[in-house]
Formats: sequence, structure tokens, C-alpha cells
Amino acid sequence: MAMAPREPEPQTAEERLIARYFRPLAKHPGAFGLIDDAAVLTPPAGTEIVLTTDAIVGSVHFFADDPADMVARKALRVNLSDLAAKGAKPAGFLMSLALPNAIDERWLDAFARGLGADAEAYGCPLLGGDSVRIPGPVAVSITAFGTLPQGTLVRRSGARPGERVVVTGTIGDAALGLLLRHDSSAAARWKLAAREQEHLVDRYRLPQPRNAVAEAVRLHASAAMDVSDGLVGDLGKLCAASGVGAEIKADRVPLSEAARRAVAAEPTLLETALTGGDDYEIVCTVATDKLASFRAAVAPAGVAFTEIGEITSGTGAQFLDRNGEPMLFKQTSFSHF
Amino acid sequence: MAMAPREPEPQTAEERLIARYFRPLAKHPGAFGLIDDAAVLTPPAGTEIVLTTDAIVGSVHFFADDPADMVARKALRVNLSDLAAKGAKPAGFLMSLALPNAIDERWLDAFARGLGADAEAYGCPLLGGDSVRIPGPVAVSITAFGTLPQGTLVRRSGARPGERVVVTGTIGDAALGLLLRHDSSAAARWKLAAREQEHLVDRYRLPQPRNAVAEAVRLHASAAMDVSDGLVGDLGKLCAASGVGAEIKADRVPLSEAARRAVAAEPTLLETALTGGDDYEIVCTVATDKLASFRAAVAPAGVAFTEIGEITSGTGAQFLDRNGEPMLFKQTSFSHF
Repeated sequence: MAMAPREPEPQTAEERLIARYFRPLAKHPGAFGLIDDAAVLTPPAGTEIVLTTDAIVGSVHFFADDPADMVARKALRVNLSDLAAKGAKPAGFLMSLALPNAIDERWLDAFARGLGADAEAYGCPLLGGDSVRIPGPVAVSITAFGTLPQGTLVRRSGARPGERVVVTGTIGDAALGLLLRHDSSAAARWKLAAREQEHLVDRYRLPQPRNAVAEAVRLHASAAMDVSDGLVGDLGKLCAASGVGAEIKADRVPLSEAARRAVAAEPTLLETALTGGDDYEIVCTVATDKLASFRAAVAPAGVAFTEIGEITSGTGAQFLDRNGEPMLFKQTSFSHF
Repeated sequence: MAMAPREPEPQTAEERLIARYFRPLAKHPGAFGLIDDAAVLTPPAGTEIVLTTDAIVGSVHFFADDPADMVARKALRVNLSDLAAKGAKPAGFLMSLALPNAIDERWLDAFARGLGADAEAYGCPLLGGDSVRIPGPVAVSITAFGTLPQGTLVRRSGARPGERVVVTGTIGDAALGLLLRHDSSAAARWKLAAREQEHLVDRYRLPQPRNAVAEAVRLHASAAMDVSDGLVGDLGKLCAASGVGAEIKADRVPLSEAARRAVAAEPTLLETALTGGDDYEIVCTVATDKLASFRAAVAPAGVAFTEIGEITSGTGAQFLDRNGEPMLFKQTSFSHF
């Protein structure tokens, strides 16, 4: 009969916390059940490891009273989104968790449950971590790993003039959801039904990373990135990295029903939607002769796929309004600094 | 003539911060100059990747007024110490940096300088990162990567009865240094010369990870871990993971001259030294027939190497005083919770 792996008795409160909440999530053999100083990844021959790290902080990236399971899932998903945009398959993650004194067992229990559910759903197991006290807000820093056939990472710098610009899903929901989270009375002004309000707030609270289409991105896109700081600014970064420009038809940018209704009620919200961030969709460029097969490859995942414009030999991402006039934005991108 | 890599003009304050302070550190080709969503590591065939993450937080792991270059170096070094204890060679790191509003350019400049100096010194380049605002203390979370020939990671669980227990460097300096940092008047009570006081405080402020002996550890040790939460508790963890006990002669535990003087003045400080943490030395176990070659392999690095006791078939790490009596400790290990 096989012996269960040895799990030493936790000796300190920190070890008990890890053993109780996080060891059950560390099923990958390279995690050593979280009882060692480090974890191990053994990439199959011919693969490379994609590394990405993103932190979320209470009162900055989520609300202090957001449900703990949502906080955990958001922390993991913002990293999964980077892997998806690079065409990589999730392989695991490390988490460093800074907790204020006020956090109790119920919070931790919900946090670990949310984290475990998404680790499972996205095939991205917990490999290790660190937990520390902080005289401040909860801060969750996750480093996620993905794998790729060597040399196939989809960079930001591969866009070429004449290629089409494509985005997944819908843009702007999370930015509008954040406004609603700050001021729920806006829902009435925007003439939103209850479920539309909920849709926008959910999109802020819980990103839907597009890992289901990562493989299609890898096989078809010439450049890609995840939209986390606003479509206008992020596409601008992609253009800058590629040394190209982009011309986007703003009315082609896919909005959800809820976002369309809000923009119809307050047209200035279009700028919020295009520049607000937290979308966690993929924006990518694709040669015209690959467009149809890209679309076909994405279809089975049920992820919306919208062509919004094209890459030019200019500079900067230009968004054109209905009249073909370039739109001017107060701020193109979210920035922490 | 080779073209310089394309470096797009930073568009936001966050991008400017990254471009100015951190891009110069990201020399590894897999870092893509910090202008992509992710980095890439391509491990040579037959190697595995060792992953470790440790965070340090202001007012918890360092003092708010500690020099910024020291904060950066400590953040990297606590991670390098884990790689050293596992026998791995540093390959690079990701950093997630949470900064309060009060941080200014001078602080960032010094931080980046310290980080760059150690990245260079330890051959561990910056591969990527994330920077966010925090309504709280500075928090630096680093994930470090190392490489190893496949299957050669030195775990905590390999210790066997009859093996010798070895530690590098000296134990307890940092714990005493922390007391001095809180109350410099203790230096007089402990009869310390100025340079001894400085030595202890420096050992708290700036760990000396033992990466120079990582290869020797890999080739000789049966089990190893870095001493970060106190020798007594950490060796206890190693014993628990290995299913063995240890019998340590407390007076064999290597103390620096400064620590010896402090303990002579206040004998209860011996407990502080043995259980206080922040040593960032390596404790490991080694079969008796490998001891001499291990010692010889460590010698060129100029790192002290001290045999302090042996592994038994019992349970727990027992520390014996001069009279051979087991010592009792109030708390064996540092714990955040």
C-alpha cells in the first residue's frame, strides 16, 4: 500500500496557517507540499518558461470589503491573463500574501477556497509562497508560470502595417463597474437594469482571463498583450513596441449591452470604457490571411472576437469616431504613478 | 552595426518609473527590456527550475528609515539565500514593488542602485515586475529562479540518523542586531565596541546569502535549508520533514565575536541568538564520509563551516547545554502569525 506523503506537524502559527489553508492547494509534485524552501518546475524539452508577476492591493485594486474568495481569484486571474496574452499554457504559481492583523480565519478560509477553485479551473496549481504581516492593507503578489514551445512567445513587438487589430470579449465593463462600485446611484442615471449593473460590477471584481484562446493567439497573432490599463493606452504600448501605428474605429470596439446602455445615457462614458482599464481581454494583431482561421480557432471557446481596426505605418494608436475624426482623450491609460 | 534594441518612449508615469530605474537592470534577453507582459526563461536541457518567493515589508522586515539601497538588497538576498540552501544557481528574478505616496525619486534611485549592484554581484538579473501604489508601508515581493541539474535539489527531507549537522557562517548576529536597532543603549550593557555593534546591526540589515557554497551543498548535503526563522525552529522543521531528530551541542553553534561578547554579558541572549531568526545561513546534514570533502569544497569561498551536532532516530531538534542538559526555549521560531 502506498504511504501518504510525510506531512510534518506544523510548529508555528504561520506553519499552521499554511498547512490548513494552502497545503491542500499544492498538489503539484514540485510544490513539495509547501514544506520546503523552494519549488521545482521541470519544463519538458523544447519548451520555455513564461514568467509574469502582478500584485493587487486592498483599497487600490479591490475594495476592503470585497469577498475574500473574489480577491484571491482576481489576484490569480490578472496573472493568468498575461499568460493568455502571450499564448502560454499555465503551469503553476507562487503567491506572497501580506495580511493585516484584522484578517480572521473566515476571511482566510474564503480566500483559500476561491484560490483553490481557480487554480483547479485554470490548471494552474499553487507551487509555493510566503505569508507575512503588514501594517497596512491586504497585498497579494502572484507570480505565474506558463510553458510554450521554445521561441513561440507572442510579443508586443511583432505588429506590422496592414495587419488587423482584434480584441476578445468586451471592453470597458470593469471601468464602468468600478464607477458603479463607488457610486451605485449612477445605475439609475445610466438607466441600467439590476442585472446590467451587476454585470458591470462583476466584471470589475472578477476578470475573465482568456486562457481558452491562448493557443489560438499563439498560432495566429503577430503581436499581443492583455488589456489591463485601458485599451487606448495598451494598444499604444503595443504600437510603440512594434514601431507602428494603429487606426481603430471606436464604434467597432465591442461593448456589452450594459456598457452600451450606459454610454447611450452618458456619452462621455465611452472615454471611460476605452481608457479605464481592468478589462483583462486580449488585444492582438493578425495578418489578413490568418484572420479567418484565427476566428475559427477562437469560436469553440465561446469568446467574442472582434476586428476593430488596422495597423498602419504611422505612430500611436488613433481612435476614430463615427465621423472619422481622431478622438482626443484626457488620459489614455491607467497609471499608478 | 547592430541596432540597439527598440525602447519605446514611456507614455505614463508608471512607464517612466520603470524605464528610468529598472530597465537598466533588465539586461537578460528574456526580460525583453521590461516592455512586454511577461519574461522568458529557457532552461538548458536536463536542468530544472527552482522557484522561491519571499516578501519584505516596511516596519516588519526593515525599518521605515533604513537606506533604500539596503532594503532592495535585503529583498533580493533573502530570496538568494533560499536558492543557495537548495544548491541552485541564480538565474534571475521578478519583483513586485508596492510603494506609498511618500516615496520620492531619491529613494527610488537608491533602491534601484542597491538592487542593481546585487543583481550583478550574484549573477541574478531582473527579468520583470510590477509596481503598484499602496496605502501602507513599502512592500517588496521578489520571486527568484535558480537552475539545477535535474533531480539534484537538496530538500529538507533527506536527513538520516548518524549524519552530521553543519551550519555556515555565524548564528544569532541579526537577532542581536535587531535588538540593538530597537535600543542602541543595549550596546553599553553588552560591553560592545562600536565596530561590534555595527557588525550586529549590519547583519540584520544586510543578509549574506551563501550562494558561494551552493554547489558544495548540492554535491555533499543530504538535506538543507536556509536559517531564516531561527536555528532551533528551522532545524526542527528539517528534522520533521526528514522524520528524524537532532542532537546539537549549543556551545558548538558558531557565534561571532560580537555575539559572544553580548552573550557573556547577558547569558539569556543565547536563546535570542539560537531562536531569533534572520540569519540567512545554511543548516544542512551530511554523511560522515562526505564531511571532509564538503569542508574542503567550502573552504575556497571563505565561508565558515561548523559541525554542531548529529542527526538521531528520535524526533525534534534538541539543543544541549554545557552540562549535556536539554535546553528549553520560550519560543523556538519566529512566526508572523
